[in-house]
Amino acid sequence: MHSQRIIRSYSALFRKLQIISNIQRHKTQQVAEKIQIPSSFAADLAQIVGKHNVSTANAVREQHGHDESYHSIELPDMVAFAECTEQVSEVARLCNHHGIPLIPFGSGTGLEGGVNAVKGGVCLDLSKMTKIVSVNAGDFDCTVEAGVTRKTLNSYLRDTGLWFPIDPGADASLCGMCATSASGTNAVRYGTMRENTMNLEVVLADGTVFDTAGKGKRTKKTSAGYNLTNLFVGSEGTLGIITKATIRLYPQPEATISATCHFETVQAAVDSTVQVLQCGIPIARIEFLDEVSVDACNKFSKLNMKVAPSLFLEFHGNASGLEDQTKLVAEIVQANGGSNFVWAKDPEVRNHLWKARHEILYACMALKPGTKPYSTDVCVPISNLPKVITRTKEMIQEAGIIGPIVGHVGDGNFHVFYPVHPDDQETLAKVKDVSHKMALLALELDGTCTGEHGIGQGKRELLEREIGESGIKVMRHLKMALDPRGIMNPGKVFF
Amino acid sequence: MHSQRIIRSYSALFRKLQIISNIQRHKTQQVAEKIQIPSSFAADLAQIVGKHNVSTANAVREQHGHDESYHSIELPDMVAFAECTEQVSEVARLCNHHGIPLIPFGSGTGLEGGVNAVKGGVCLDLSKMTKIVSVNAGDFDCTVEAGVTRKTLNSYLRDTGLWFPIDPGADASLCGMCATSASGTNAVRYGTMRENTMNLEVVLADGTVFDTAGKGKRTKKTSAGYNLTNLFVGSEGTLGIITKATIRLYPQPEATISATCHFETVQAAVDSTVQVLQCGIPIARIEFLDEVSVDACNKFSKLNMKVAPSLFLEFHGNASGLEDQTKLVAEIVQANGGSNFVWAKDPEVRNHLWKARHEILYACMALKPGTKPYSTDVCVPISNLPKVITRTKEMIQEAGIIGPIVGHVGDGNFHVFYPVHPDDQETLAKVKDVSHKMALLALELDGTCTGEHGIGQGKRELLEREIGESGIKVMRHLKMALDPRGIMNPGKVFF
Repeated sequence: MHSQRIIRSYSALFRKLQIISNIQRHKTQQVAEKIQIPSSFAADLAQIVGKHNVSTANAVREQHGHDESYHSIELPDMVAFAECTEQVSEVARLCNHHGIPLIPFGSGTGLEGGVNAVKGGVCLDLSKMTKIVSVNAGDFDCTVEAGVTRKTLNSYLRDTGLWFPIDPGADASLCGMCATSASGTNAVRYGTMRENTMNLEVVLADGTVFDTAGKGKRTKKTSAGYNLTNLFVGSEGTLGIITKATIRLYPQPEATISATCHFETVQAAVDSTVQVLQCGIPIARIEFLDEVSVDACNKFSKLNMKVAPSLFLEFHGNASGLEDQTKLVAEIVQANGGSNFVWAKDPEVRNHLWKARHEILYACMALKPGTKPYSTDVCVPISNLPKVITRTKEMIQEAGIIGPIVGHVGDGNFHVFYPVHPDDQETLAKVKDVSHKMALLALELDGTCTGEHGIGQGKRELLEREIGESGIKVMRHLKMALDPRGIMNPGKVFF
Repeated sequence: MHSQRIIRSYSALFRKLQIISNIQRHKTQQVAEKIQIPSSFAADLAQIVGKHNVSTANAVREQHGHDESYHSIELPDMVAFAECTEQVSEVARLCNHHGIPLIPFGSGTGLEGGVNAVKGGVCLDLSKMTKIVSVNAGDFDCTVEAGVTRKTLNSYLRDTGLWFPIDPGADASLCGMCATSASGTNAVRYGTMRENTMNLEVVLADGTVFDTAGKGKRTKKTSAGYNLTNLFVGSEGTLGIITKATIRLYPQPEATISATCHFETVQAAVDSTVQVLQCGIPIARIEFLDEVSVDACNKFSKLNMKVAPSLFLEFHGNASGLEDQTKLVAEIVQANGGSNFVWAKDPEVRNHLWKARHEILYACMALKPGTKPYSTDVCVPISNLPKVITRTKEMIQEAGIIGPIVGHVGDGNFHVFYPVHPDDQETLAKVKDVSHKMALLALELDGTCTGEHGIGQGKRELLEREIGESGIKVMRHLKMALDPRGIMNPGKVFF
């Protein structure tokens, strides 16, 4: 038995070394030279999208060379603005012919450097494709072009009695949200983009345009062939460009109530959450804030909450259903030692509360003026959440840095929003170290290194650890099958 | 403008011809000879799984050469029973080496001939892999081996307060349900296998074993790399063999009420359903039965229902929540002219009702003794459902055949269960004709040719129409990338 154990541990070590050597190899590939763009290329692009839709100006390239994350700007060689799918298709065909990187750009609100042009090339801005193609109120679905953002859609839907609940905070484009597999505060009840995307119009690297579920299809269910829709959801622009999305809508809730409450410990807040879910309460939002986040919120958004581990809750339903839900949740919270239960029925008070929740990134930055956000994102089975949060808080304290914790606790997903001065290399190094260790801990505890931000540039090494050598190999095979020249958003998801 | 229209219509025609010629080409490929198995092969298999786990007996091959559908038996050359993932991996490697077809077999309860060995080869029966690997009650998830069926799991879970709600009727294996992207009566509330599968252990054609979401991962959300889990869900054994599944569990409802009610028209029943969904009522089951099905149910299951288009409903929740839901639904039904609302609170009455619903396939066969079922499966946006059902009923009447209609109406999904004598070629031809026309109508109305039964052998041509040439090409590329020798369940999904 003893020798078997040694063999096993040796073979595990060997496997690890293999993975590390693979990572090294990929890293070497990554440093390859940027592609030289032919001098006539901008003119060729202009032939397709019009001269007014091509820019090599520094300001435009800079604007398109980064998202909202800490990753350094990486400039594309030029930016093209597409106005329709046919143009996207022709641009793809042109880039593919020349082997030039092509990076789709939605709203630029990503958090892992997904749009940064690490190998130069063409950034294709889709924000001019703003048609809401159809709203089928009776079927709870709609189809939008790539440039439509979630707030625009919800404004448009206001009088239909329907809404699209997925809410990552930022006013992201809906097709961009598909590309990143986004979610946010309402996911605990309504799911993520994975569960809410019914069909996608996609342009492949070679210019092929097709609908992942078949032309015009918009069914709640299907088992017709491979689930291509969900292959493209979360593919981060590396398999093709999403030009249209057909997504699910929901009835606007008849009534909404929000609430906040506070706990002695992280464990008590998470225990309450688990019990809420166990009771089958269809809670719409259940957000955790640690005491540092609450403090930041109080200061930035003029709230007056107890500085303690807290939950922000929201309930959707009809009047009597809400009464039932809120009563039950209040009992659960009380049983876990929760206190200061404050209800917010008035829309203004509710909006103020959720505005504060959504502004928390800025609130955290305001804790150290002049800083930029370094945001992390792990997700674990909910029973492991207290362990990961508690250990993360310890590591933050040990490193002597500021790291407010905010979590979509009903999904086991949380973030740390570190405020970091751009020039403060020492703090940045500490933040990176703690973030990496936090992600490794999440992986150890059956979790993922990203619940909703995606891999982008920032988590490629972690993806290799998470999915393993065979999983990466399968992903690479799929990438090769659909984008053999590797032009689609290179340097993202994989090294 | 006029000439442009002509050009467009010509190019549409040209495209259609291209698709048809493609279909013809694929059909020719399909008639290729069956593969010759080396004489030593059974012995090689026995080396892996043990002699007692390999059979070339006719009875065993026959048992494994068909599912529950009308598709003719197609015998595998031999049947192997795997007892663990390592054996599955070695069997795959062996088959891949020799280029021998490998067909995974779960419970054999499919409805599109997905397990029939159209090119011979090895049928790999997974029913001996019956471990429930883990149940994480606090995280609402569990992991099961390939042979565990949904009823076995739910019996096992009885005392945990949790259950797995996806219910396709048959006692299918859970990994088989993953492979077909199954769903059933509870999908309107709990989703399908697509939404409820968190991770899969998969064996690829070359024997590689990997976890689609990474080893041991079981998070509610993830955006780490491509969604491989949902690539394998619904892949019908053509991309690899699912040997373990990690799936979501739900709290057992505190209380359950069922009900039936009847309508003058199909439209009124569907209108009621849409309004129920629009009100955001979390109904657990909402099943449509046309008057022919009700009649069959009355006769077979000793019910005494009004012979009219009907809804079977089920509500899950706590006592006060249920009161609220049922009151609202009763109002909606009444407003649509529904009548004879009968509530079933008593578990025995409820079980009798749902047993009748689940036995409906047999009830339909009993309408013409000695027949076998030919079952169809389309899904459309719910607003188009009355149109498809009404036209289907007309076509059934015009053809002079019996075709009871049953639908998961909340999902826009319905079936016709035709009773057909195996030797009655004339009726079979009529049934096939009506089924095909019904599927084409569904495609025309933004629907799919299969909501939950899969493509198997029966719907390959329809898949080509549904997904189009480019979509099929993408699917084929993915298949080629993961199974370059084409050994995995050949002749399914594609021609």
